[in-house]
Amino acid sequence: MKNLIGSCMFAQSGGPTAVINASCAGVFTEALKQKNITSVYGVIHGIKGVLNEDFCDIGKEDLKEIEFLKYTPAAALGSVRYKLNDFNICDNDYKKIFEVFKKYDVRYFFYNGGNDSMDTCQKIYEYSKKTGYEINVIGVPKTIDNDLTSTDHCPGYGSAAKFIATAVMEINRDAYIYDSPLVVIIEIMGRNAGWLTASAALSNISGCGADLIYLPEIPFDNGKFLYDVRSAADRNGGKCIVAVSEGIKYPDGSYVSDQKYLTDVFGHCQLGGVGNFLKRLIIENLGVKCKSVELNILQRCASHIASQTDIEESFEAGKQAVISAVSGETGKMVVYKRKSNFPYDIDYATSDLSEVANKEKTIPLSWITCNGTNLSHEFTDYAFPLIQGETKQPKENGLPRFSKLKFLK
Amino acid sequence: MKNLIGSCMFAQSGGPTAVINASCAGVFTEALKQKNITSVYGVIHGIKGVLNEDFCDIGKEDLKEIEFLKYTPAAALGSVRYKLNDFNICDNDYKKIFEVFKKYDVRYFFYNGGNDSMDTCQKIYEYSKKTGYEINVIGVPKTIDNDLTSTDHCPGYGSAAKFIATAVMEINRDAYIYDSPLVVIIEIMGRNAGWLTASAALSNISGCGADLIYLPEIPFDNGKFLYDVRSAADRNGGKCIVAVSEGIKYPDGSYVSDQKYLTDVFGHCQLGGVGNFLKRLIIENLGVKCKSVELNILQRCASHIASQTDIEESFEAGKQAVISAVSGETGKMVVYKRKSNFPYDIDYATSDLSEVANKEKTIPLSWITCNGTNLSHEFTDYAFPLIQGETKQPKENGLPRFSKLKFLK
Repeated sequence: MKNLIGSCMFAQSGGPTAVINASCAGVFTEALKQKNITSVYGVIHGIKGVLNEDFCDIGKEDLKEIEFLKYTPAAALGSVRYKLNDFNICDNDYKKIFEVFKKYDVRYFFYNGGNDSMDTCQKIYEYSKKTGYEINVIGVPKTIDNDLTSTDHCPGYGSAAKFIATAVMEINRDAYIYDSPLVVIIEIMGRNAGWLTASAALSNISGCGADLIYLPEIPFDNGKFLYDVRSAADRNGGKCIVAVSEGIKYPDGSYVSDQKYLTDVFGHCQLGGVGNFLKRLIIENLGVKCKSVELNILQRCASHIASQTDIEESFEAGKQAVISAVSGETGKMVVYKRKSNFPYDIDYATSDLSEVANKEKTIPLSWITCNGTNLSHEFTDYAFPLIQGETKQPKENGLPRFSKLKFLK
Repeated sequence: MKNLIGSCMFAQSGGPTAVINASCAGVFTEALKQKNITSVYGVIHGIKGVLNEDFCDIGKEDLKEIEFLKYTPAAALGSVRYKLNDFNICDNDYKKIFEVFKKYDVRYFFYNGGNDSMDTCQKIYEYSKKTGYEINVIGVPKTIDNDLTSTDHCPGYGSAAKFIATAVMEINRDAYIYDSPLVVIIEIMGRNAGWLTASAALSNISGCGADLIYLPEIPFDNGKFLYDVRSAADRNGGKCIVAVSEGIKYPDGSYVSDQKYLTDVFGHCQLGGVGNFLKRLIIENLGVKCKSVELNILQRCASHIASQTDIEESFEAGKQAVISAVSGETGKMVVYKRKSNFPYDIDYATSDLSEVANKEKTIPLSWITCNGTNLSHEFTDYAFPLIQGETKQPKENGLPRFSKLKFLK
């Protein structure tokens, strides 16, 4: 545990969220206040920006624009998907990265991302230990997938969940306008963990939610699915709203979306994708009208409906990363520890990066109802606090006012 | 012009909008106040509800729930797509409708919909004149398509435009996170009129909008499109954001989305739809990464981001329908007359239904820039006032609190 004096670098990595820049604002705000931090650098396009010496001096930015970052979606500094080699096999990248660290006297390194990014962060920490270069390395979590271990939940999840639950309610209302049978399939992101799709369950309390929810955690069966849909439609005057994860799998582990079921009985071509596949299955087997709606990338960028709780926690996660690094911690990621659901309360702490890197947290099976198509109150008690609070996003001309950084060297 | 005493019926028809129920709230609120209106009936599933004698007594509803209708998407009373015959050819439906009117002493009929619905409204008005049954018939406009004639704009358009412009900004930010070339095609509703797609232009003022906008008003050319995209991407470091109407057409009038271009060079099947077709065209001809995003039905039901201006005007349109009917008008539709852009101000008036029914208003060609891929300031001056104001939608558990009517007979 060393209290270091020097400059700091912050970079973002992996897929963005509606609130990843709130963490960015938290890091910058706190780092600019810390006496031990001599310069604050924002690195462009993640670890590649370190390799390319591509970064900007945050001390030259307007503080108001840093505040606006809390309400600006997608990685403000640019992101990257770049996997560092094992340095025992090839350490070229590491040599370059640490040369840059030395050149700019970087003693604090913050990396904002999901499980792959925490692998990068962990490797940099390990290399610093091996070479004895003094630098405190802290990970700042983010992912809409909510699949990082060691933390109660992930920055970005609450906002995506709020968008999904709201959209499901609106689509449900839309589905009921005509008095004819209709099945609506809502395709939701998440390849291996069902947290995003599960958030559709939050809409059920309103009375206009999803009748059936299919998660990657539960093996999928075409026949059971058709039976479930028919039963639900029979109960609901012919209507059935289905929330389905893009990552649902058959018992043999193959993705349903990989089905080679691309030509229909009339010889028409069909696009892959789980929503279109299930739509096809329903039309051909149940003979009812079916729509497939993909919520697409708005799930990760719809900042206009971000959860204010998520925004504030993400900002605080960034601040806590700086505070823990300056106090001497390294090789850690900031985590949320839940103290209570009602009233909702969390503590901020840190966990070893090695506990987080490359690992994945799925939904506990005990939180899924016995028919496998809904979530228990343990899930809704867990998730509801995360979607509370309406964003205070500033507006200009009736549209969001995003941050405008100057990116000065 | 007759001041009638009797009951009133209100029904909704056609595709919904985020604010169609605000007009419903306006009609109910005003009708319940009017001394000449003895009962207020909400008809279920449009004109079919009259034929089936399926309606509820709005006098038995909680006034608070009627207020919540302002913030509840999709037709609260259910909708219908049902075309009345010409009564000179077959008047069976008309006989039944007017029997029901007589039975319940209906002297006011309000029909809430787009150009097809105004055709229904007009026919009922004509039949009342022919038979001498005294009833005042008033249309209440609604359509996200903004294509009704005689009115400056349509209830529902401002909210859809606000959602689209916001989503384009968010998708733009998302597209810029990686430092590799990327074209994003955003497919927007609107078969014949480009108003919805044009609203993407509102995002351009923010600096993160759409680089190219393709409307049904301008004949489409594959070659010019590829040239436009390449030029824009060259200017923007490899990025290009394209907003495209589902209704773009080739010079011969055929829809681009009808292309029989369904198998790629590898024999893979591809789904139709203009977004997927253009994505394919770009990948095969320009060799760059391309995503296609369909904004789908959230365009017509995303009440969480409705324009408060649109909500208030839609409510007022409903009120004005009742006021004009009670004052003796019939065979009319409520219209907006714009008095000024800056400051924005409108008057409410009425137009003959015969001027509106089955007609379509497209974007003036002079509002489209000479390269055919953007909108002039005439359009943005027109559209900006319509997206102003954030919705006051009430929330419960962090989600929208929709209206819960009792539907009592």
